[in-house]
Amino acid sequence: MNGNDSSSTSRRKVVIVGAGFVGSVYAYALAQSGLADEIAIMDKNEDLARGQVMDLAHGQAFFPTVSIRVGGPEDYADAGLIVITAGAPQKAGEKRLDLLQRNAEITGGIVDEAVSRKTGGVILLVTNPVDALTHAAVRRAGLPRGRVIGSGTVLDSARLRYMLSRHCKVDIHNVHAYVLGEHGDSEFAAWSMTHIAGMSMDEYCPACGRCRDWKAERCKIEQAVRDSAYHVIGYKGATYFAVGQALTRISAAVLRGQNSVLTVSTELEGEYGIRGVSLSVPAIVSREGVVRVVEGRLAPEEQASLEASAEILRKAAGG
Amino acid sequence: MNGNDSSSTSRRKVVIVGAGFVGSVYAYALAQSGLADEIAIMDKNEDLARGQVMDLAHGQAFFPTVSIRVGGPEDYADAGLIVITAGAPQKAGEKRLDLLQRNAEITGGIVDEAVSRKTGGVILLVTNPVDALTHAAVRRAGLPRGRVIGSGTVLDSARLRYMLSRHCKVDIHNVHAYVLGEHGDSEFAAWSMTHIAGMSMDEYCPACGRCRDWKAERCKIEQAVRDSAYHVIGYKGATYFAVGQALTRISAAVLRGQNSVLTVSTELEGEYGIRGVSLSVPAIVSREGVVRVVEGRLAPEEQASLEASAEILRKAAGG
Amino acid sequence: MNGNDSSSTSRRKVVIVGAGFVGSVYAYALAQSGLADEIAIMDKNEDLARGQVMDLAHGQAFFPTVSIRVGGPEDYADAGLIVITAGAPQKAGEKRLDLLQRNAEITGGIVDEAVSRKTGGVILLVTNPVDALTHAAVRRAGLPRGRVIGSGTVLDSARLRYMLSRHCKVDIHNVHAYVLGEHGDSEFAAWSMTHIAGMSMDEYCPACGRCRDWKAERCKIEQAVRDSAYHVIGYKGATYFAVGQALTRISAAVLRGQNSVLTVSTELEGEYGIRGVSLSVPAIVSREGVVRVVEGRLAPEEQASLEASAEILRKAAGG
Amino acid sequence: MNGNDSSSTSRRKVVIVGAGFVGSVYAYALAQSGLADEIAIMDKNEDLARGQVMDLAHGQAFFPTVSIRVGGPEDYADAGLIVITAGAPQKAGEKRLDLLQRNAEITGGIVDEAVSRKTGGVILLVTNPVDALTHAAVRRAGLPRGRVIGSGTVLDSARLRYMLSRHCKVDIHNVHAYVLGEHGDSEFAAWSMTHIAGMSMDEYCPACGRCRDWKAERCKIEQAVRDSAYHVIGYKGATYFAVGQALTRISAAVLRGQNSVLTVSTELEGEYGIRGVSLSVPAIVSREGVVRVVEGRLAPEEQASLEASAEILRKAAGG
Repeated sequence: MNGNDSSSTSRRKVVIVGAGFVGSVYAYALAQSGLADEIAIMDKNEDLARGQVMDLAHGQAFFPTVSIRVGGPEDYADAGLIVITAGAPQKAGEKRLDLLQRNAEITGGIVDEAVSRKTGGVILLVTNPVDALTHAAVRRAGLPRGRVIGSGTVLDSARLRYMLSRHCKVDIHNVHAYVLGEHGDSEFAAWSMTHIAGMSMDEYCPACGRCRDWKAERCKIEQAVRDSAYHVIGYKGATYFAVGQALTRISAAVLRGQNSVLTVSTELEGEYGIRGVSLSVPAIVSREGVVRVVEGRLAPEEQASLEASAEILRKAAGG
Repeated sequence: MNGNDSSSTSRRKVVIVGAGFVGSVYAYALAQSGLADEIAIMDKNEDLARGQVMDLAHGQAFFPTVSIRVGGPEDYADAGLIVITAGAPQKAGEKRLDLLQRNAEITGGIVDEAVSRKTGGVILLVTNPVDALTHAAVRRAGLPRGRVIGSGTVLDSARLRYMLSRHCKVDIHNVHAYVLGEHGDSEFAAWSMTHIAGMSMDEYCPACGRCRDWKAERCKIEQAVRDSAYHVIGYKGATYFAVGQALTRISAAVLRGQNSVLTVSTELEGEYGIRGVSLSVPAIVSREGVVRVVEGRLAPEEQASLEASAEILRKAAGG
Repeated sequence: MNGNDSSSTSRRKVVIVGAGFVGSVYAYALAQSGLADEIAIMDKNEDLARGQVMDLAHGQAFFPTVSIRVGGPEDYADAGLIVITAGAPQKAGEKRLDLLQRNAEITGGIVDEAVSRKTGGVILLVTNPVDALTHAAVRRAGLPRGRVIGSGTVLDSARLRYMLSRHCKVDIHNVHAYVLGEHGDSEFAAWSMTHIAGMSMDEYCPACGRCRDWKAERCKIEQAVRDSAYHVIGYKGATYFAVGQALTRISAAVLRGQNSVLTVSTELEGEYGIRGVSLSVPAIVSREGVVRVVEGRLAPEEQASLEASAEILRKAAGG
Repeated sequence: MNGNDSSSTSRRKVVIVGAGFVGSVYAYALAQSGLADEIAIMDKNEDLARGQVMDLAHGQAFFPTVSIRVGGPEDYADAGLIVITAGAPQKAGEKRLDLLQRNAEITGGIVDEAVSRKTGGVILLVTNPVDALTHAAVRRAGLPRGRVIGSGTVLDSARLRYMLSRHCKVDIHNVHAYVLGEHGDSEFAAWSMTHIAGMSMDEYCPACGRCRDWKAERCKIEQAVRDSAYHVIGYKGATYFAVGQALTRISAAVLRGQNSVLTVSTELEGEYGIRGVSLSVPAIVSREGVVRVVEGRLAPEEQASLEASAEILRKAAGG
């Protein structure tokens, strides 16, 4: 079911660029997962990279064998996955799009270097604003569009599933839901694609009857998902644990060639009637990155939300 | 999200009655999963139980710590889960319902003993014909109906998901599908509850376009699922590996209190318009067994299939 | 092999007091491990606890089901394990013993509360200086000494194993080594207890022949282990990833009742000729905490180092 | 610490030849472990291979993504590991050496085919009598000796650790012990290499004091290990669960390049004063198979036992 084409990439090798909280916590979750053979960590602050590698590797007795070390540009060539978390973090109260200028230059340079080293792997952008930076990177890399992707709303979809699971008291593994559009204020829950126990939410909610006004509850949950990053940042100054898990999930899809449906950020070329921006829709992710965009039938108001989100991203890029 | 009510049961203790292939392979998968603290194995053939325990426990160096030992009736009292696999196995060519008389007496005696020991755990029937035996056990036990359940079509649903995943080249974790009704020849795929990437199959298949005649493909897949046990038994004489995994999944729902949606066999009391038989529909399984039957809206032909399946089971029981 | 005595504690419930880096990273590793059913997190900064819980729980889709929530003192009663990480962190250049006064009051108050709630679980101190704080807590709690323990040199032993594994190019799972004494500057590697591939280091090193002057190499490695925390703190300002794994390992021993040999900090009552201080020697850790101190035969210079370490701790306590 | 040299082998691809109990149970444990990307199963009885593949793959929903399929000789070329379990099984009461003639032809043919396909992977013999068959295969393959190895006493060592762990009530992960020599009646426990909690057994036992006559206990345990296969076969007709775990452990060492110390069967070229037979001594196993034999200092009676074991194997081969 999953492919094992021969290749010059070292399939289970991951390069992480950016050794801050997100990059290091992701490395931690990845190490514990047993997915990777090799994790190379880089940062322009070499001491930080060195410190994270030491702190991570000192736990080697307690997780599956993996080589964790400070990496260099030569590691791009045979990596199966390059994860870019470098850049200035989002500050409390700051909009994701405000970060664009600061971070486009940083991530662009990393992509250039990876391409010049003829990387055979997938490039995954995590730095915010992730959609705009992904789009810039796709353009710049000159690789097939699916090879350069963004973490998009994979985390937001997970948050939506978590909140629905809690509210409905159903195992999160049986709650299927997607947040689409921009990873940011214009994102939205695609309720028409949401299912619990094989039923669409529109069927499930009346049948369940646990909450009186389920339409109002949905709005509250959607808003809570959208505000999650702000809340967590407000409480603790940054958000990194859940994103580390979301990145590990994307890594599994790539490293194992799983053909997973994930709402990564990917350049649209006419799917959903949109072109010329990168944003999150359900896409099939495997060893080669996005191998196919899944074009579902959105409800009219969802389609409108997706187009509005695309427009916001297009304007921000043009600004 | 999951409950931790205090209780006199030893939550992570599992008793397995029947040390044949299914019981022992389940114990093997369960041990490797790290879910259980204690696995007590019984069989009327005491040497067999002893041999399985030795062969399982000799691998202790390689999986998480768990006490594996030969059990006795005194183990029922504080078990969190009692799994009954004892009984004569299904032979090549044999219908599942043919096994009924032979096995009802065996499993009934075990249930009686567990109840007399005031078990606080969930009783899970696996022996075939599982629906009829589950129903007899529910009646006999006098416990709340959700406390006595059958493995039902949890495996059949997994087979359907596997075949769809292979056919559609999509990660099985994004393929959601249920086989309902009897665990046997009258079972059927509930296509109206089946989803890939957030889309119902009726939407997904035309949009995907990978196969010409997707309606014909569905029929083939449904038939292949129904015949799986016969095929595997024809090839190797018995089926046990996948059922071992399916039982481990049910165990996780019970031992961790996960509220998972699983097509276990459970007594219906009017849900889906059916009463007085036990069969598989989506049900929420947690620490207390089935806590709720999920009543989805089936397509008319599916509802008819479910009723036909119920009728077959009712007749077999009456026969 | 492991015991499952009935008890009023909820065996797989962990309370974490202190939601800073160490506490939250430990919660993260613990959640991913699947060991716990319930993780309750507390901090005097309630917003911090709330933020960590949200950031951790948002990843629930990606790790085994566990309830993660903000806890309160009522959670002490039925917890299987209470882990105290609260307190001021060690600053760059600061000696661990300097932290004593600042932190003794904080951890003492937590222990008092747990005892007043009649906790049935093990209390694990992590806050530094861990040996002194453990000793104070043992005295204060009035519980059997084994019920109140410190993380001690479990991490230091893991670092020693990591460095030996790298140096000798042998799987860390086949390198067995202990750092004993104070978790601090007077700690030492117990070379007489160190083995690779079934051989003591004194036999292994000459037979291996990979390095010229293996005695000098050992000294370098021992020093590097001792300085690890300083190095990591110098590079990244704090150390938390490896300690999160070490705490998860201790948690497994307690939650599963594994009888693991771990160099936790425990009060000595004459073992190794020492009395009246808590420090790290090999001890058997299970559901009830330390069930037995393993009294090995140390080399004379190691025995002297242990006594010197005990003396330093005794003086610091008296100071 | 572990190497990631580029290579034409598909590192995480495993070919299993022989789809009987041992081969299929190993495939089951391997699938659940998440170690492999691809498992190709072959058997001269094609229906059996087909049936096992179906029964294994039907559980795909419940373990990490892996391609499980019926393989063919073309799969040898890029496999990272080829595991040969084909051959007649050991019958109750039968000596392992009696199987030699029956099985040498079968395994030899498989090795020839793998070599003719220019396999870049490690060849692991499991079929009994494993030492003699490994030795014949090493000779026949013409590959570096470390590339062709036998499962040897990896399982016997695990059994010894299990029995010591139970007897001493110490976590098996802290009990380190090796069974050396023939995988058969002349095998012996290398007590001089056995350690608990950093202490040799000779130190540990008197210090522990749990059993009166520890020398007698050791003899009993050693005998019980030696007779384990006979006992399990007597009780249940065959032994396969623990060996499936042991093979998964060896697989981890090869697939992840772990440099693990394992008592695999390997050709000696003068180590321990022995030459011209293959048997089990501690060896470092990694991506390339055995990369080094660890030459420990055995006690005089152990050295004599090893030589006697070698002599028995030499005679059997000559017979």
